[in-house]
Amino acid sequence: MARIVMKFGGTSVGNLERIRHVAKRVQSEVERGNEVAVVVSAMSGVTNQLVDYVNDSANLFDLREYDVVVSSGEQVTAGLLAVVLQDRGVMARSWLGWQLPLRTDDSHGSARIKQIEVAEITRRMAEGQVAVVAGFQGVDSQGRITTLGRGGSDTSAVALAAALQAQRCDIYTDVDGVYTTDPRSVAKARKLDKITYEEMLEMASQGARVLQTRAVEAAMNHRVRVQVLSSFEELPGTLVVDEDEIMEQQVVSGIAYSRDEAKITLVKVPDRPGVAAGIFGPLAEASINVDMIVQNVSAEGGKTDLTFTVPKADLAAAVRALEARKGELGAAEIVSDSNVVKVSVIGVGMRSHAGVALSMFQALAGKGINIQVISTSEIKVSVLIAEEYTELALRSLHTAYGLDAD
Amino acid sequence: MARIVMKFGGTSVGNLERIRHVAKRVQSEVERGNEVAVVVSAMSGVTNQLVDYVNDSANLFDLREYDVVVSSGEQVTAGLLAVVLQDRGVMARSWLGWQLPLRTDDSHGSARIKQIEVAEITRRMAEGQVAVVAGFQGVDSQGRITTLGRGGSDTSAVALAAALQAQRCDIYTDVDGVYTTDPRSVAKARKLDKITYEEMLEMASQGARVLQTRAVEAAMNHRVRVQVLSSFEELPGTLVVDEDEIMEQQVVSGIAYSRDEAKITLVKVPDRPGVAAGIFGPLAEASINVDMIVQNVSAEGGKTDLTFTVPKADLAAAVRALEARKGELGAAEIVSDSNVVKVSVIGVGMRSHAGVALSMFQALAGKGINIQVISTSEIKVSVLIAEEYTELALRSLHTAYGLDAD
Repeated sequence: MARIVMKFGGTSVGNLERIRHVAKRVQSEVERGNEVAVVVSAMSGVTNQLVDYVNDSANLFDLREYDVVVSSGEQVTAGLLAVVLQDRGVMARSWLGWQLPLRTDDSHGSARIKQIEVAEITRRMAEGQVAVVAGFQGVDSQGRITTLGRGGSDTSAVALAAALQAQRCDIYTDVDGVYTTDPRSVAKARKLDKITYEEMLEMASQGARVLQTRAVEAAMNHRVRVQVLSSFEELPGTLVVDEDEIMEQQVVSGIAYSRDEAKITLVKVPDRPGVAAGIFGPLAEASINVDMIVQNVSAEGGKTDLTFTVPKADLAAAVRALEARKGELGAAEIVSDSNVVKVSVIGVGMRSHAGVALSMFQALAGKGINIQVISTSEIKVSVLIAEEYTELALRSLHTAYGLDAD
Repeated sequence: MARIVMKFGGTSVGNLERIRHVAKRVQSEVERGNEVAVVVSAMSGVTNQLVDYVNDSANLFDLREYDVVVSSGEQVTAGLLAVVLQDRGVMARSWLGWQLPLRTDDSHGSARIKQIEVAEITRRMAEGQVAVVAGFQGVDSQGRITTLGRGGSDTSAVALAAALQAQRCDIYTDVDGVYTTDPRSVAKARKLDKITYEEMLEMASQGARVLQTRAVEAAMNHRVRVQVLSSFEELPGTLVVDEDEIMEQQVVSGIAYSRDEAKITLVKVPDRPGVAAGIFGPLAEASINVDMIVQNVSAEGGKTDLTFTVPKADLAAAVRALEARKGELGAAEIVSDSNVVKVSVIGVGMRSHAGVALSMFQALAGKGINIQVISTSEIKVSVLIAEEYTELALRSLHTAYGLDAD
């Protein structure tokens, strides 16, 4: 007997037939003698529709009201799954964020979980009642509904698993696990049996969409064993675990990529103290996240080129903010390029293996792919390349690091 | 300065454009210096969709979960209207049933309001903030969401007006008031400036769909001045008020009709004590409401025919329940007819005027319309006739009682 949390995303509960299928899987876990809490997303498409309503209502809106509107999707799914479970003879009831309560701070639209009250559901789960919890939502100290930001249901599930001290948090999704890289781009991609929290965190933040970054962070912080698996097929998925649970660690575990980046270069800015602050200050004010940053060594005349990346969606705003200060910054030119992709190789094995970055550069050079920007962290090497080389780069790196399936 | 409650139904908030229009009308009231609470329904079609989801999920379902699902529609509208009001510079916030809280009993699916906490919204309304209240929903003593039954937003609005001691409760709808009869059937139908609670109650329960019966009851019990008016046109509507506010009371104020009835006749049942109980017991067990009942005087052999009406939707179930006991009841035959309509003339003036029923019978006889069943109350006479005569009957009664517009 174990206590487990099962989380089903929007496509897994996209219509009644799929909700019935979810109920069947939940029932299997109950019949195995497990105590089960289920976290559900809104039916696929519903949240987008609700977000559109709010966006179409006003240019600037009260995020507290946004949360009232968009949280309704998960409410519907939770009620329906409870009905379908009861119809199968499984004891169940729905729980909304304010009913548990799942307490958050008051950062509406992207609230952070402070505490989850689980005494009542723990008692009921022990009696065999399934707790069907609406994901993505909580309640602030004023009793107003909050939401956790897009993909927040993953975070709800992991936090609930932590609060329940669950043995496992199973994230059911439309892929059957975490792959060495995107199988749609690389035919030889392999499903990983296990991956470490740190690697999963880098995979998620570098573009792999299988788990939300915050959910992985929460899992890592509370040491929740997360499993990513398919809601459509009965296959084992990928376990996200502590490093010491993985016997033979590959040097590189996976390769992620993100098309969401755009590159900006400030040409010939004066190479003097304070110039970086002068550039990034205005971007921070405009709430634009800067990711990779490269500054060349000063060329002749004390001038340098400065290149960095921003989210593609923020490119126009970033260029606007910088053009407004172009004279002040002393830049000769502001050049931008959105036809770029960031490719990252990730693996905790890098810590103990030298030459990982070198292999990457060699593999890409061998295919004639020019590297525009490089950034590294302890367990990751990222490069920015022209977008047209995405698949070629992924395939050659996948082979170079010995990740190809047989 | 007055304190008012405005209620907008599903068609009035059917899309964003209409919600913007609603916001404009709310703003006008605020700018007149009024303290305003607004009660909203779900966008038209949304509640039906949600009810369908639940009905398709299971044959028998937990009404507590039904309430979780169907209450989400009003939640969305409340949030959106608050956003749109704020966008117009009007202070506003949404309130869900559990947030006020609006406390109900635990009859999920058709809960009754017990008490509404209004201290906080009263304070905010005094400061100029509009309270946008999700209609149709409340919370039970266990903290679970309840709904008030179809059309319950009218009841929410009236109950809120009573709790707020509001000067007026304006029900905005897709018709511009209460008419002497259905204007789609009778071209000469007139809009009433005023109608009494008692008449409105009979009109609502006899088929006029402009206001929900329970809402009228609540208004009558708490002496809430209700106005029914159009959300699309800027016209005065119909005031529902105390009898003493109406100076010259017509004998008949309105004519309602309902096509939702079906007639059942038990032919030649023994005319002995207990036979009515034997017939209506099984129907009550099957939760079927019986409306009009006529028992003929005993013919030869101590046998009588017994006729009554049931909701058309329950006809098959009613006949099934009776057929199962046919032998026991001693009926020779069970005959049913769903091609009937109930036409009712309504007016508090009847109390002091004789001959109202007679005028009705004469008018119908004059057109060759056969009356199948008659029932009367203090301020109402209803007859059951063949459905094909509906419009003819309405028109001739409308003329006979002097209700025609010039």
